[in-house]
Amino acid sequence: MHKQLMKGNEAIVRSAILAGCRAFYGYPITPASEITEAAALYLPQVGGVFLQAESEVAAINMLYGAAAAGVRVMTSSSGPGISLMQEGMSYLAGAELPCVIADITRGGPGLGSIAAEQSDYHQVVKGGGHGNYRTIVLAPHSAQEMADLTALAFELADKYRNPVVLLADGFIGQMMEPVEFPQTAVEPKLPKWAVAGTQESRTNLINSLYLDNDRLEAHVRHLEAKYTLAERLETRAEEWQTDDAEIVLVGYGIVGRILKAVAAEARENGLNVGVLRPITLYPFPKMHLQRLAKRARVFVVVEMSNGQLVEDVRLAVNGEKPVEFLGRTGGNVPSHEEVLGLVRKLAQRTLPVAEPEERQMAHV
Amino acid sequence: MHKQLMKGNEAIVRSAILAGCRAFYGYPITPASEITEAAALYLPQVGGVFLQAESEVAAINMLYGAAAAGVRVMTSSSGPGISLMQEGMSYLAGAELPCVIADITRGGPGLGSIAAEQSDYHQVVKGGGHGNYRTIVLAPHSAQEMADLTALAFELADKYRNPVVLLADGFIGQMMEPVEFPQTAVEPKLPKWAVAGTQESRTNLINSLYLDNDRLEAHVRHLEAKYTLAERLETRAEEWQTDDAEIVLVGYGIVGRILKAVAAEARENGLNVGVLRPITLYPFPKMHLQRLAKRARVFVVVEMSNGQLVEDVRLAVNGEKPVEFLGRTGGNVPSHEEVLGLVRKLAQRTLPVAEPEERQMAHV
Amino acid sequence: MHKQLMKGNEAIVRSAILAGCRAFYGYPITPASEITEAAALYLPQVGGVFLQAESEVAAINMLYGAAAAGVRVMTSSSGPGISLMQEGMSYLAGAELPCVIADITRGGPGLGSIAAEQSDYHQVVKGGGHGNYRTIVLAPHSAQEMADLTALAFELADKYRNPVVLLADGFIGQMMEPVEFPQTAVEPKLPKWAVAGTQESRTNLINSLYLDNDRLEAHVRHLEAKYTLAERLETRAEEWQTDDAEIVLVGYGIVGRILKAVAAEARENGLNVGVLRPITLYPFPKMHLQRLAKRARVFVVVEMSNGQLVEDVRLAVNGEKPVEFLGRTGGNVPSHEEVLGLVRKLAQRTLPVAEPEERQMAHV
Amino acid sequence: MHKQLMKGNEAIVRSAILAGCRAFYGYPITPASEITEAAALYLPQVGGVFLQAESEVAAINMLYGAAAAGVRVMTSSSGPGISLMQEGMSYLAGAELPCVIADITRGGPGLGSIAAEQSDYHQVVKGGGHGNYRTIVLAPHSAQEMADLTALAFELADKYRNPVVLLADGFIGQMMEPVEFPQTAVEPKLPKWAVAGTQESRTNLINSLYLDNDRLEAHVRHLEAKYTLAERLETRAEEWQTDDAEIVLVGYGIVGRILKAVAAEARENGLNVGVLRPITLYPFPKMHLQRLAKRARVFVVVEMSNGQLVEDVRLAVNGEKPVEFLGRTGGNVPSHEEVLGLVRKLAQRTLPVAEPEERQMAHV
Repeated sequence: MHKQLMKGNEAIVRSAILAGCRAFYGYPITPASEITEAAALYLPQVGGVFLQAESEVAAINMLYGAAAAGVRVMTSSSGPGISLMQEGMSYLAGAELPCVIADITRGGPGLGSIAAEQSDYHQVVKGGGHGNYRTIVLAPHSAQEMADLTALAFELADKYRNPVVLLADGFIGQMMEPVEFPQTAVEPKLPKWAVAGTQESRTNLINSLYLDNDRLEAHVRHLEAKYTLAERLETRAEEWQTDDAEIVLVGYGIVGRILKAVAAEARENGLNVGVLRPITLYPFPKMHLQRLAKRARVFVVVEMSNGQLVEDVRLAVNGEKPVEFLGRTGGNVPSHEEVLGLVRKLAQRTLPVAEPEERQMAHV
Repeated sequence: MHKQLMKGNEAIVRSAILAGCRAFYGYPITPASEITEAAALYLPQVGGVFLQAESEVAAINMLYGAAAAGVRVMTSSSGPGISLMQEGMSYLAGAELPCVIADITRGGPGLGSIAAEQSDYHQVVKGGGHGNYRTIVLAPHSAQEMADLTALAFELADKYRNPVVLLADGFIGQMMEPVEFPQTAVEPKLPKWAVAGTQESRTNLINSLYLDNDRLEAHVRHLEAKYTLAERLETRAEEWQTDDAEIVLVGYGIVGRILKAVAAEARENGLNVGVLRPITLYPFPKMHLQRLAKRARVFVVVEMSNGQLVEDVRLAVNGEKPVEFLGRTGGNVPSHEEVLGLVRKLAQRTLPVAEPEERQMAHV
Repeated sequence: MHKQLMKGNEAIVRSAILAGCRAFYGYPITPASEITEAAALYLPQVGGVFLQAESEVAAINMLYGAAAAGVRVMTSSSGPGISLMQEGMSYLAGAELPCVIADITRGGPGLGSIAAEQSDYHQVVKGGGHGNYRTIVLAPHSAQEMADLTALAFELADKYRNPVVLLADGFIGQMMEPVEFPQTAVEPKLPKWAVAGTQESRTNLINSLYLDNDRLEAHVRHLEAKYTLAERLETRAEEWQTDDAEIVLVGYGIVGRILKAVAAEARENGLNVGVLRPITLYPFPKMHLQRLAKRARVFVVVEMSNGQLVEDVRLAVNGEKPVEFLGRTGGNVPSHEEVLGLVRKLAQRTLPVAEPEERQMAHV
Repeated sequence: MHKQLMKGNEAIVRSAILAGCRAFYGYPITPASEITEAAALYLPQVGGVFLQAESEVAAINMLYGAAAAGVRVMTSSSGPGISLMQEGMSYLAGAELPCVIADITRGGPGLGSIAAEQSDYHQVVKGGGHGNYRTIVLAPHSAQEMADLTALAFELADKYRNPVVLLADGFIGQMMEPVEFPQTAVEPKLPKWAVAGTQESRTNLINSLYLDNDRLEAHVRHLEAKYTLAERLETRAEEWQTDDAEIVLVGYGIVGRILKAVAAEARENGLNVGVLRPITLYPFPKMHLQRLAKRARVFVVVEMSNGQLVEDVRLAVNGEKPVEFLGRTGGNVPSHEEVLGLVRKLAQRTLPVAEPEERQMAHV
């Protein structure tokens, strides 16, 4: 087993194939195009299918078809394309179909820019489509995690029969890093529920239509139970020196890398700073935050957005401790200096707040 | 001025025309089809344009064109169609184009059902499309409000140059009630920024593309400033006997009507129950909740969803007081009895919690 | 009444509006884009509707809707777009809906080029769509005829309840010439058969579906009877010095202008050359050709194509006299010199063939 | 080698796979749906790709992609779908891409009916798309020929780098007959010109755009030369007792079967009747007709259409002998009796016309 140097976008595809993915439908868009390109190259080599669809709307519905037939399938896109997929994603979740969707984010609403942002958090994590459904969302912060979390994505998609989104920014998609792959490949198996065109699967039914209120409610509750289970079992986060942290920096993806560097420097300056990097954005690592909230004095959420992850952090912390926010947008990345500057300012402000009974003051 | 009996869906269209709307592009879907139907009937009568588009994707992009040309324009749909419009809505917000989108909700993810739910809250309120943008969201609870909030929607759309969503459930869309319209109609005026095919508007530019990071960030900040202004100026909520309320019921749309009946009966039983009905879902009436949190012992959020509005309530209350949740889905409506039952249970539980210092217990 | 200098493409739109056209749906394509542009400018000025559709498929189906509602409606495109409209055109003819389609031709199959060709003759004249139907096809050769034949097109469309195609090449579309318009405008009237959303039109039905064989056959026969009537009443052609012509040059559109110049020069050289310029391509001026075939020795069909009109000429002449062909393609135009050269060669060859009884020889 | 009982539609797919077809993109439509169904079943079994596209427009453009990549590919549809494919077919021909398109005809323009007609002859044979191009058209008349001509279609498609259409009616598609397949399968090979994503194919270019007039004309001439070659080498027709035939019945597909039965009965009645059944509709068996025209007294074209094939017959016979026509439409099939009745009438009428010089009379 050795490491190969490659772009994060390529690592996704290589890992997907090892995870048994045999169909890819998509439409290229910067900064996700290398995924489409690699899929076009590698999938036919394993007897798989690659198809550049007419549009993102077409692509996501092809995932529906392939997934219904029991094939491990994926697509990729960026903001505008992911928006076009919202109807299809709701249908996939409603019909309980596993699939993997890589979202390599770009900047701004509308055309915006091709630079990276983290402004699609709400869309992907809260559910940009209609109805009570969720997608599991994984947020890699390196080319290696692009590979590892893709493998995990296929596993979770199958386990929960639900779409899983890989939410990565353009930096990680484009940067080249050494990546190590597992030595054994997953052999794609036909799920029992699939409509596979066989005698045995004749009576299987893939459906998201429930015209009777009680049956639809029962279906929604069934989906909800799966999500609750995932919330209990699947939350993942990386913690860095949080044990004694008074200031906890929170950020995902590429921001997590910046935060660790800032925390390291802060510690050299005698400040007890730690980092929480959510790896699963949904289910959200709420417990991690609630645990840290007991000791920490303040949380600082850093995003390449004007504030979306911060809502989930505030919901988790629920007023126990103040939650500060620092965001940059437009493709600009919060710099080491500005994060460190905020940390220093907060350190001065929060240091005197030692006693729990004075919490309310700190809250103001 | 006299009242006319009509469906909420029709009231929207009648009000839109009085508000100067002169173009409607859409695709019919139950339970929003009467809006399309009424638009097809009435718009040509005032020299306006009605067009049934090829798809919801086509329709929302026609709104972009009409709005860019300075025409007051609207569309309507339900869950699946609104999902298909997410890309277009992001473009409209990014390009700062005013328009009105009526979302008459139906049930479930995917095909779901044609019964009413409130499960598209996240999609519409948090932004189901890509990028840092918001849509203003108004939630009527009667045929009269369908008319009144449509008029307000066109006003706010123009004021903030932003899409405004009218989020209504199928009950209000379908039920017939007396409606009163204003006696004067708004005369559509050509906005100065419109690309109107005239000599004066030659240099106007409608755009959402900013390839330079700093320019895109400035643009995002500019949008954010508008949203902040709207948060300060435009929040609307109906409060019913909240002055002395220890239990505050929170719900929007048709649920608001149920909550008032429950609160009335609870008061007859000696319980200090009030109702907060958010009328603007974005900007969210956070201040109202923060004010009520000072006195109330517990909040009860009731939704026809498995819990979406409740997140915004929790973010507003921020742990000051417990926030309970009761949700029904699938087209089922929380009944008077089950809400009242919960109120009674909470009344018993919270009554002893008189002292502020014991808040943490109540929290459990 | 005075003449105005304008492009042929603009003349179409100006004439259409005077002919009562009140709706235009289309998608721009070189060399037809000025039509879309002029329609966007002028239609709103008369209370009409202009809409740039998502695609040519969408546009042609909007014509179906508008025509069904009794509105005089048109679209325009060029080769690739006209190909995309074939399904819709078959539906319009099958449902007996009047509309006008301007086809400003470009070159080549596929992307080809933006230069003019006449290679879409078969597509437009024989029926590029499915089923037994025909479209009436008019072929202007000047900006003035662009105007005049557009007016005629709307008249014939209504008279026969059938799509009418204006088949023009890019030269005529783009060249500026003085054009005179009628002083009175046609006031659009609602046809009795229209589905107009009124009480009276409630029972009207627009339909192209006939599942019973005999009913479909009766419908096809009914359409056929209309076409036969049109063949009897509506054929139009310009003849130039054909009375004594031994060599008859045949060509339509811009080619007709070249042929007249060639014929004039040939006559100066003592050759009895005439020109037949079909103005209606369907119904085809078969009678004109059959009449001329009695006296002429040879026909020379000249096309900017590799030979499509020539088939209809041969079908009309039916072996009575030889039919020669000269075609150029790719945007190249048959030159004065090459046509004149062929005329001279044929004059030498055919001169001895004076006696009718020797026809067979000439045939060889 | 033994025969298997199956529908003509299934025979197409089985034969296609034996002919090396490895990709199928299409959208089901009666009466062609069994082709899609069989393709969905069998293609994956040989490592091939089946995809149900969003629309016929999407499907035909996927053929473009697969063919460009050097894969033997096919689709199927019926009238309305074939109309939607006209743009794509023009692109395929313009870019010289081989593919096979099965058109199982249905009735009428527009929605028409699902019964069989032969009214798409012009569309398919003359070129329903834009530009100077042709498709090779094969017309099977039995399940066995469905198989045999599919194999031939792939061969000709490759040989001429051009789309080949299999034009069959719903009867042949639906009827079950014994079919024999070849014992050896064609091993798909990668054409040298393909854009295959390999190092060797890097400089290959698939293109239909030629902006320079002379280059486009040269390209059109190149295509024309291929068609001329096909006209010389590939015409195929079945003749039945034509050697001494005075009356030659002409019809293709299912009609050919009726004509042979009629001719047999006519011969029992002492009438010299023969049958010409064109197998290639393009290139058209013109030479066969010209040869038969020397001896025959009259041709009778029988179609399930109001007269399309008859034009090509008249062009071939070119007035040498009269060409009569009998057509039924709407799904109705010309009956044995009505064809025989016409034969008897013509036999009486044409019998005295023994001398060539009296030809003109017979013509009337």
